[in-house]
Amino acid sequence: MELWFTEKHTENVHFSIKVDRQLYSGQSEFQRIDIFESPEFGRFLTLDGFMMLTEKDEFVYHEMIAHVPMAVHPHAKHVLVIGGGDGGAVRELTRYPGVERIDLVEIDREVVKACKTYLPQTACRLDDPRVHIYYEDGLRYVRDIRSEYDLILVDSTDPFGPGEGLFTKEFYGNCYKALREDGILVNQQESPFYRNDAVAMQRAHQRIVQSFPISRVYQAHIPTYSSGHWLFGFASKKYRPVEDLNAEEWNRLGLATRYYNTKLHIGAFSLPTYVNGLLEKVEPLKEEE
Amino acid sequence: MELWFTEKHTENVHFSIKVDRQLYSGQSEFQRIDIFESPEFGRFLTLDGFMMLTEKDEFVYHEMIAHVPMAVHPHAKHVLVIGGGDGGAVRELTRYPGVERIDLVEIDREVVKACKTYLPQTACRLDDPRVHIYYEDGLRYVRDIRSEYDLILVDSTDPFGPGEGLFTKEFYGNCYKALREDGILVNQQESPFYRNDAVAMQRAHQRIVQSFPISRVYQAHIPTYSSGHWLFGFASKKYRPVEDLNAEEWNRLGLATRYYNTKLHIGAFSLPTYVNGLLEKVEPLKEEE
Repeated sequence: MELWFTEKHTENVHFSIKVDRQLYSGQSEFQRIDIFESPEFGRFLTLDGFMMLTEKDEFVYHEMIAHVPMAVHPHAKHVLVIGGGDGGAVRELTRYPGVERIDLVEIDREVVKACKTYLPQTACRLDDPRVHIYYEDGLRYVRDIRSEYDLILVDSTDPFGPGEGLFTKEFYGNCYKALREDGILVNQQESPFYRNDAVAMQRAHQRIVQSFPISRVYQAHIPTYSSGHWLFGFASKKYRPVEDLNAEEWNRLGLATRYYNTKLHIGAFSLPTYVNGLLEKVEPLKEEE
Repeated sequence: MELWFTEKHTENVHFSIKVDRQLYSGQSEFQRIDIFESPEFGRFLTLDGFMMLTEKDEFVYHEMIAHVPMAVHPHAKHVLVIGGGDGGAVRELTRYPGVERIDLVEIDREVVKACKTYLPQTACRLDDPRVHIYYEDGLRYVRDIRSEYDLILVDSTDPFGPGEGLFTKEFYGNCYKALREDGILVNQQESPFYRNDAVAMQRAHQRIVQSFPISRVYQAHIPTYSSGHWLFGFASKKYRPVEDLNAEEWNRLGLATRYYNTKLHIGAFSLPTYVNGLLEKVEPLKEEE
């Protein structure tokens, strides 16, 4: 017998992973949740059939969403993670002794439950005493918060289905208000390569540019995501992602990482020419840097 | 009817592309050559079933193999391209007015013929008067050359089949001798992600380190190659790839590119921690930088 999971990166491009067995399958109020075991990637989680993480390459995504802003902000104490019910971003954040409180706002309780049972590699720090989980819509959660967080990580699904609201101008505007005067917002921002992904990426960038004075994009290699070329947005009120990097201080922490390092941090903001072009096309209100 | 091309990135990971039609299929003395037309990637070339290039993303590979060394070497006049019968690397090199001679050594005459007929996007500059094509084994070609080239680009297939000899210590040693005293060697060096690719990448790096005083690795996002995370080797006798970058001079040339730019040039040499680890593991004879 052969069992294969296939994700359509586009209608004309399929990415297929050989599966040993399905560990979990459930339908929550919000989405279908599946967890598989595979010989190449270990366990992997899909939501509505879309790849969220694999044990083999989740380190890239989670290190890049957490350590990039943490190495820039000199004293991030209160952090909000929106989405990210798998616990991977929280795991990286709990490694910082200076972080005092991590609020995780995940709309789907069933995702957290399934990950705690089947994905201990990412969910391992959800019981840290600094972590507070709220099962709520992130869009609604940030609406009434004012100047509370040093850092917000938007660890969302794609911009359709339950994650759709996390790509709106209203949401980014509310994140701005929920951040302190030197706060940073980081979001997963899709891929620049295939057309539909690129359009979503541009739309997110345009909206963030309208909400934040500083807005830059950085990249990483994530083999199990569409095209393998993934982008993150870095938006902030005060700190610039490269110029204000505290490399020495971050390196003094002595955190062992597999993808992130402070040299790569700088390089990740140097984008291909065509990606710069896609971003500039939607930056009519670009601020002076 | 649906027609799909599938490449096995590993035994357990398949990458599939919807095909409109097969434009060409031939068996040369060395390998099977196929060219397809697809809705997502335009035309694409495979050798023995392995993806060589697609019209949609070949710009990444060809810009990164050609412009990185050209932006470092201040006066590259004589260039040798080994492999690269599709003409993509040659196309980028012919854009430099300072390049006086490009010798293309391609083992398989049938590849050049098929690309000239079906892939004009890459083969379009093979008729440039500065280009001289030799249908020979690259390993044998470089054996008797002494101090002739400013730049050698090894645009090879994978390290098995006809390309195998282009990953040997003997070959790199002969490239060293074929280069002038300030010459640069750039080679495509596989991917760090899946185990078999990573082992090939390490083996190549180890051998190059033993042949050249300066040996560094840089990366690019190539969606249609295994894992999308691709590496190139930069080896030289004198110039360091980042410190000796002539950004101003390169930008004065005014070459329009879609992937390469001089800021990305620097960033491309900042590798993920696990890739640095793979490289260091095989660098027992590492030189002082």
